[in-house]
Amino acid sequence: MEILGLLYEGKAKKIYSTDQEEQLLVEYKDDATAFNGEKRDVISGKGELNNRISGIFFRLLTENGVENHYLKEISPTKQLVKKVEIVPIEVVIRNIVAGSLAKRLGLAEGTILPQPVVEFYYKNDQLGDPLINSSHIAVLQLATKEQVQKMKAISLKVNEIITAFLRERKIILVDFKLEFGITGDGQLILADEISPDTCRFWDEETYEKLDKDRFRRDLGNVEEAYRKILNRIGGEENV
Amino acid sequence: MEILGLLYEGKAKKIYSTDQEEQLLVEYKDDATAFNGEKRDVISGKGELNNRISGIFFRLLTENGVENHYLKEISPTKQLVKKVEIVPIEVVIRNIVAGSLAKRLGLAEGTILPQPVVEFYYKNDQLGDPLINSSHIAVLQLATKEQVQKMKAISLKVNEIITAFLRERKIILVDFKLEFGITGDGQLILADEISPDTCRFWDEETYEKLDKDRFRRDLGNVEEAYRKILNRIGGEENV
Repeated sequence: MEILGLLYEGKAKKIYSTDQEEQLLVEYKDDATAFNGEKRDVISGKGELNNRISGIFFRLLTENGVENHYLKEISPTKQLVKKVEIVPIEVVIRNIVAGSLAKRLGLAEGTILPQPVVEFYYKNDQLGDPLINSSHIAVLQLATKEQVQKMKAISLKVNEIITAFLRERKIILVDFKLEFGITGDGQLILADEISPDTCRFWDEETYEKLDKDRFRRDLGNVEEAYRKILNRIGGEENV
Repeated sequence: MEILGLLYEGKAKKIYSTDQEEQLLVEYKDDATAFNGEKRDVISGKGELNNRISGIFFRLLTENGVENHYLKEISPTKQLVKKVEIVPIEVVIRNIVAGSLAKRLGLAEGTILPQPVVEFYYKNDQLGDPLINSSHIAVLQLATKEQVQKMKAISLKVNEIITAFLRERKIILVDFKLEFGITGDGQLILADEISPDTCRFWDEETYEKLDKDRFRRDLGNVEEAYRKILNRIGGEENV
């Protein structure tokens, strides 16, 4: 596999084309951003930690029948993935109230939800990734009704699989964001990343935050928290 | 029918109990508020205009099989309605992009939507009436799944009825907000009001705004615009 040009550079990842038409290389960066890019920093080692953590979650999901874009780890910070066209919708699943849901509904952070909350956000930095519903998705033609239903069903399955996996490792899956993509042959599959940048993880005993909220809220020890997640889910680090 | 005590005073209406257990009296006020109460004024004659306009729309809906709380006009500013427990959800139906939808989706005001957009807002002044979805409604237990489906279906039917009625009167129904209530015997019916305070009406030829946006945006001639609506939909005024 040969790396060709840089296709796209996002806030936390770079995407390269390869000599394989249907495969892309994802490089996880050490850059951290929050509040739609207003807060920025570099967290040394984050790229490697997230590449390893994402790889573990994607392999877990593959083993459990959830098709996704992950193919294999290429280097400490790089993974090979299937080429997809990203659907401009972020699917958020919430098990416990935190972040924007606390503000939106006036519920205390930490409130256990009686059933998972499913939210769709329009992936659009200019608009600040607004909450949208299925009729917004329809008029913007972001996805078909069937794709929306499939994204919701897959996201709830991912929630069950990862929640159970993490419970055994004394971690609470508070909430997470997923993105999906369409393959060359029109199939909708899970894509993007699954890491402390895109999930809220709390220690089951201490409720210590082990995710990007440490960066957002200036709690310190960001890298250490991410490393705790990697260690608990069984990954070894090459740092 | 005898008016008993004031039960509730809202931003635009007062609600009184009557000597009939299952009937309430609604008094439409001249007070105008916008932006969650931040902007306030008194628009002389608005109470009467909205009472008359709401009455006409509710009678139109009753004739077309949409059950609602309206019973009869009692005075220029007062109408008798069925007593209901208001569901704390505002249902918004949009045919043309305006107001918050333009901001949320980054679409130009005036864009004709390929299908009606249906939105649910949490009726909660403290939270600024946030947009919510069906899973938020479920966890907050604001309504059952069946009630949500019924509210959506009724709202779309109301849209068809009023759009057709107004088209014959050279008025475009841009968008509107509905509220629902539960009667003493557990029935979900349409409630609240239908007026230039809760709908956007544009003149079909000139696109002149004939609704509360004249107040929100300091366009002047608020009362005249409301009167135009009343005149076009066939109401006589007692002022």
